[in-house]
Amino acid sequence: MLYFVGLGLGDAKDITVKGLEIIRQCSRVYLEAYTSILTVGKEALEEYYGRELILADRDMVEQQADEILKGADSSTTHSDLVLRALNAGIQYRVIHNASIMNAVGCCGLQLYNFGETVSIVFWTDTWRPESFYDKIKKNRDMGLHTLCLLDIKVKEQSMENLMRGRKIYEPPRYMTVSQAAEQLLEIVHNRRERGEELAMTEDTVCVGLARVGAEDQSICSGTLQKLASCDLGAPLHSLIISGHLHPLEVDMLKLFSGAEGLKTLKMTDSSTYVS
Amino acid sequence: MLYFVGLGLGDAKDITVKGLEIIRQCSRVYLEAYTSILTVGKEALEEYYGRELILADRDMVEQQADEILKGADSSTTHSDLVLRALNAGIQYRVIHNASIMNAVGCCGLQLYNFGETVSIVFWTDTWRPESFYDKIKKNRDMGLHTLCLLDIKVKEQSMENLMRGRKIYEPPRYMTVSQAAEQLLEIVHNRRERGEELAMTEDTVCVGLARVGAEDQSICSGTLQKLASCDLGAPLHSLIISGHLHPLEVDMLKLFSGAEGLKTLKMTDSSTYVS
Repeated sequence: MLYFVGLGLGDAKDITVKGLEIIRQCSRVYLEAYTSILTVGKEALEEYYGRELILADRDMVEQQADEILKGADSSTTHSDLVLRALNAGIQYRVIHNASIMNAVGCCGLQLYNFGETVSIVFWTDTWRPESFYDKIKKNRDMGLHTLCLLDIKVKEQSMENLMRGRKIYEPPRYMTVSQAAEQLLEIVHNRRERGEELAMTEDTVCVGLARVGAEDQSICSGTLQKLASCDLGAPLHSLIISGHLHPLEVDMLKLFSGAEGLKTLKMTDSSTYVS
Repeated sequence: MLYFVGLGLGDAKDITVKGLEIIRQCSRVYLEAYTSILTVGKEALEEYYGRELILADRDMVEQQADEILKGADSSTTHSDLVLRALNAGIQYRVIHNASIMNAVGCCGLQLYNFGETVSIVFWTDTWRPESFYDKIKKNRDMGLHTLCLLDIKVKEQSMENLMRGRKIYEPPRYMTVSQAAEQLLEIVHNRRERGEELAMTEDTVCVGLARVGAEDQSICSGTLQKLASCDLGAPLHSLIISGHLHPLEVDMLKLFSGAEGLKTLKMTDSSTYVS
């Protein structure tokens, strides 16, 4: 049997009782470590679970999937693994847990008012994709919020090391809310220069979230301009671009903004605010 | 301190270790019982948690919020309660867990390819709203999947009992995938009659899900027409209307369809299927 066990977002105790029992009974346990970050670290999890964990990074999951399936146990989350497992006659089961996709609801924005989720990637000097902005525009046009998942660079090789075939990796990088906001501000600036109708401006109300579910979770709401200069501390960070806001959502966001944070909001009718 | 503890979707052991510890330490524990259904029942939860639970239905949460806050502990999930608590000087904390909003990913459709979530309500003879169809249309136009949350009627009074002030409640009703599909088929039929451009047809590939996360979870994929006659058993049910499908998503959906289930899918390019 191949189990996919969600670990939760905060610390070791965010695993479900069912998930913990399964981990303790399995013959081999892999720890998926490339779509997220281990806030508490592998050692802390090993101690709490009472089990040795095999770190499964992207290389391993993509290239050594068959090895993971020999057995078969896993803590990673891939349709590909499911299909390979079933193909090999191995049954699977998912033990669900919180993910950033539903835990962002803690900021007070209603989950069913979110549109398509977007990913914001680190720009380089030569690669500055803007496709996420166009998706945000579509969501905003429909009054919907946009959850932006921010880029994670783990086990990346420099171009030089890659070309020389040296398995030397750069330090991991996690995009901050501030960095994401800076990139968005630049896109807004560029589009304004080109005379385009804007999806959002410096004044659009956004929400920055860091370490959701952890003891030191940090949430900040305010204009995009404000979030570009906020420091929410260690990763992981996520950013939400608001759509239309219900008064109850506004009241919740006020908990995470300074006195001036939401002053760009305008009421369009008794149940709707926009920015 | 007011805690909001997610209970998970399957059985009593789907609570997180952290959540269980908190429930066992709190002076009063409420069980929110109107946005979902207790697959295992209050008694089973009480036995597993080792605590007496106070059933909090909609009436109680809306009308007796202050009573809940006297203390203050809770297992419900409302911005309103958060705001009341903070207003009364009571701190709060959220213990996250899986919800249908992220657990639907178990069918193999990618969560970031979902658009706005819609609710499908029970039609009556005189009230047949179609607004959810228009939202599905917007999502489909952008190639996005739509999660449809299906209506729950709990503690509803008949019109007669309501008018006579009698607190007699109808048996609870939970919309099935089949019922939701029937309503959608009727809307498609009506719109076709009116000559409208259709958002979806009888042939659109959908996914029906029942009791997600529970031992007897049931998933069925196929055309809307097929889902209208499927029986997924006991509640809760959810329905997904697919948008554009990635080949890996199609491979996953094949796990939940019969041999003929996905024959209406057409490949538009090497990475996209539509129906």
